[in-house]
Formats: sequence, structure tokens, C-alpha cells
Amino acid sequence: MLVIERYLSSLKKEIEEALESYLPPETTYPSVIHKAMRYSVFAGGKRIRPILAISACEAVGGKAKDVLSSACALELVHTYSLIHDDLPSLDNDDYRRGKPTCHKKFGEAVAILAGNALLTLTFQIITEQGLAGKIDAALTLKIIHEIAFAVGASGMIGGQVVDVTSENSIDAPTLQYIHTHKTGSLVCGSLRAGVLLGNGDQGQLRLLTQYGEYIGLAFQIVDDILNVEGDKERIGKNVHNDISKNKLTYPVVYGIGESKEWVKQLCKEAISSLESFDYKADPLREIAKFIEYRNY
Amino acid sequence: MLVIERYLSSLKKEIEEALESYLPPETTYPSVIHKAMRYSVFAGGKRIRPILAISACEAVGGKAKDVLSSACALELVHTYSLIHDDLPSLDNDDYRRGKPTCHKKFGEAVAILAGNALLTLTFQIITEQGLAGKIDAALTLKIIHEIAFAVGASGMIGGQVVDVTSENSIDAPTLQYIHTHKTGSLVCGSLRAGVLLGNGDQGQLRLLTQYGEYIGLAFQIVDDILNVEGDKERIGKNVHNDISKNKLTYPVVYGIGESKEWVKQLCKEAISSLESFDYKADPLREIAKFIEYRNY
Repeated sequence: MLVIERYLSSLKKEIEEALESYLPPETTYPSVIHKAMRYSVFAGGKRIRPILAISACEAVGGKAKDVLSSACALELVHTYSLIHDDLPSLDNDDYRRGKPTCHKKFGEAVAILAGNALLTLTFQIITEQGLAGKIDAALTLKIIHEIAFAVGASGMIGGQVVDVTSENSIDAPTLQYIHTHKTGSLVCGSLRAGVLLGNGDQGQLRLLTQYGEYIGLAFQIVDDILNVEGDKERIGKNVHNDISKNKLTYPVVYGIGESKEWVKQLCKEAISSLESFDYKADPLREIAKFIEYRNY
Repeated sequence: MLVIERYLSSLKKEIEEALESYLPPETTYPSVIHKAMRYSVFAGGKRIRPILAISACEAVGGKAKDVLSSACALELVHTYSLIHDDLPSLDNDDYRRGKPTCHKKFGEAVAILAGNALLTLTFQIITEQGLAGKIDAALTLKIIHEIAFAVGASGMIGGQVVDVTSENSIDAPTLQYIHTHKTGSLVCGSLRAGVLLGNGDQGQLRLLTQYGEYIGLAFQIVDDILNVEGDKERIGKNVHNDISKNKLTYPVVYGIGESKEWVKQLCKEAISSLESFDYKADPLREIAKFIEYRNY
């Protein structure tokens, strides 16, 4: 196992233990929604957004414990977006991470409501940290604002809207918009939350946002490539799903070769953004290399 | 026009002007979601939740201007719940307030995302007031927490879940749970937000929560009665819709006569909760009487 692999899996474990404590038990009335929320949150996933928040916080000299609750909130808001993305009227996916999607398992109504409940819980968890005095109240508001902005109609939801309303036309600027918003906004938001909670300065905020823009896009292109080249076992959903849906992706628009070259370039740029950071940003450097590695 | 009618319509106008300023213009990219958000927010509605927040704030000696932004946020979160409630997999309603529902007008995917965007904007607006120093940061967190709790899986969403998963069985405690959560939670949350923003004390918070429980339930029963007795023009959607869907309602379970008697009793209890308040709570007293009046 690579050093970065153990780093990621150790953080993932810590995040999942914390997530366990933030989600109400399955027995909470009405049980079906709490089951659905837990089902989707614990259906797997790399927990890359919370990991980025923690690594960004540490890169600017902060402590992981100060960011853990917000990091969990970021995973909840990500899970909500996946549940809704998979719905029949959006991407209509039956499998996610090798398991039936939330609406296949619990029905469409419960899936919609479980997504809504996770989005709401996201804000509740962060707020509670501030009310308990664990994070300064004004800083807590900044974190809430970062996340609300990242996932709102000018951020992630904007990307989802353009994605679902333009499936039959292929056009490079549109593709760029979809990915920088659908994936990129929350990736950047995670890094920014980490910087803010680690008391980083404006320059660090700007540089780690830039880093996020590069790896967010790289991450998405790798996903698109795996959707063409990967096997179902590795990516947990039907391969060629995007092609069969005539969906706009990088390999479709630019071809596999050029897409891979682009990933390489983006990861290199991401690492360059970290030039002024010391050894504490090494995890972020390794994460960028690891995203490129997934490419082969 | 009754005094209370003019009071309500004047407040409604003020709230709608403020809502106008909080919603991004229709031309904001991607335009379709901003159109859908505005379509549903401005499709009508009594604006009862923001009105209750303002009246509660004034009842404890606060100023309307301090609560207006949170009041607008309450209307946005209410609109999100209506858009999602109307979806084919939930209540499957084609009309709301006399107009095609959001998904009939913009398609299901955009309606789901517009609801999500309104929920997100709710928290963003309240946060911005705190960040701008218009509301104290810690108080802002309390308001966010009240609203997140009121509309989360143990509040409004809980009521929606039980509603959609129990349409074919009629049982009084279930009906009670649905209404106290689906409608009651946000009505109480609106009043509580108003009390907190008006710097009310714990006793006032408790009494106005109680008032909210009574009028929330009364309001819902009147809606159910109008669904049986009303005409489409007055209530803006198909009459007998609930009956044709074999939906659990008060008139179905208890009959029209007993339901009306219950509304009368609830409004009386609501007014009793205000006994220790002075003239500044008169609007809340009149609102309770007005809900009863809708009953005839």
C-alpha cells in the first residue's frame, strides 16, 4: 500500500466513525428515512471532500479535530447530491458504488426526502458546533456561507441543472461549466472550509481554491475515463452508462488520449499552486499525484 | 375589508417586495432554475409563516425590520416543501394556487433542483444577515438551528415521509403526527424565530410555541375542510383531490362537523396562550380568529 493510500484510508476510517455519530440511529421515527439516509451515506465512497477539508486545514497549520464536524457535513451534502442525481428524472442510475441507488432501494419519494434531510442536517451539524462554542460563531457563519454558496444555484445545483437540460447537445464550454460547478464547486468549498477553520490567510485561501479548481476538474475527467475504460467492479456502476445515455463527457468530446494528457497537466498545475506551502501541504501534493495515478 | 385582512395584505406586500430582492434575477445563468424558483415563490400564497415571524417578533417588543430577512427565508423553505410535495412520486399534484405546479411547468428534474436551491438559499440569506452584522452572529446561529430542526427529518420532512408512506391506512395518531410535523413544525419554527429575533424570553418562547402548535393544527384542518367543501377557484387546486387519492385527512377521519368544532377549540386555546401578553400580541390574537373564520 502506498503511503498516500494508507493516509487516505486512515482518514476515511476516522471520518466514517464521526459520520456514524452525526447520523440519527435507524430506529429514530420515522425509521424509513433514517434508514435511507444511513444507507446512502454508508454505501461507500472515497470521502474525498472531507479528506480535502482536513488536509487543507492542516496545510495552513490548523488541527484536524477543529474541522472534523464540518468535514462530515461536507460528506452529507455530497451524498444528498448523489441521491438526487441518481433519480429517474435526473441521471436515472440504478447502481451507485456497486449497490442499488437510494430510490431503487427505498422508492423515489423517500429518496427525495432523504436527500433533503441530509442537506438540512449538513447545516444543522455545522451550526451545532458553533452553538456549542467549539467553533467561533462568526467563523461558523462563514463556513455555512461557503457551503451554501458552493452547493447553491450558482454552484453545484447550477451544474446539475445544465447537465440535465443539455444531455443531447455536445459543446465544450457547457461541459466545462457542468464540471466546474457540479463537482468543482464543492471540492473548492471543502478546501476553503478547511483553510478558514485552520485560520489560514487570504493568500492561502486563494491558492488552495486554485488547487481545488485543478484537482476538481482532474477528478471529474478521471471519472469520465473510468466510465469508458473501467470495469463495473472497480467503479461500482454500469460501464458505458454515460455513452449509452449520449451524455456529455470529456472522453466523448476530446477522446481518451487528450483527456488523459489533460488530467496530467491539471494535476501538475495543482501541485504548482502549493509552491509557497511547506511540508504540511504534502498530503495535498500526494492527493494530486494520486488522482493522476487513478488515470492509468 | 376586516382590519386583520388589511393587516395581513399589507404585511404580505412588504414580504413580497423583500422576497423580490432576495431571489436572483431570472436572467442569472442557468436561467431555467432561477425562473422555476421565482415561478413557485411568486405563484401566490398567504405568506402566513413570515407574517407569524414578524407578528411574534413584535409581540415580544422587537422590530419588524430585524426579522424581515429571516421571514423571507421561512417563505423560501416553505415554497421548497410545496414544490417537492407536489412531485409525481409524492402528492402528484398538477395545480397549486390555481397554476400548474413547478414540475408541470418546468419538468421534474428542474422542479427537484429548484426546491433544493430554495432550501439552500434559505440558509444563505440568514447567514448573510449575520455576516453583515445586521444580526448578532450567535443569534443568527440560533435562528439557523431553529429552522434546520423545524424542517429536518424529525420535523417537516418527518411529516412528509409518514404522509407518503401511509396513504392507504387511516389511523388517528398517524394523522396527528403528519400534521403536527408537516405543517406544525415550520409554523412553530416561524414563531420561535420571531421571538428569538425580538429578544423575547424563555417564557415567551414557550407560550408562542404553544400558540403555534394550536394554530398550526387548526390551519391544517381548515385546509382539509376546504378541500372537501371549497371550490377550485377559492383554494386553487382540484377539490376532492385528497378524497380521490384516499388520503388521510381530518374530515375523512372525524367528519366535517367534528373537524369544525375542533378548529374552533384550537383557535380558542391559541388565544388563551397569549393571556400574559399585552396589546402587542393583538395581531396574533386576530390571526387565530381569522383562521377560525376561514372555516365558515
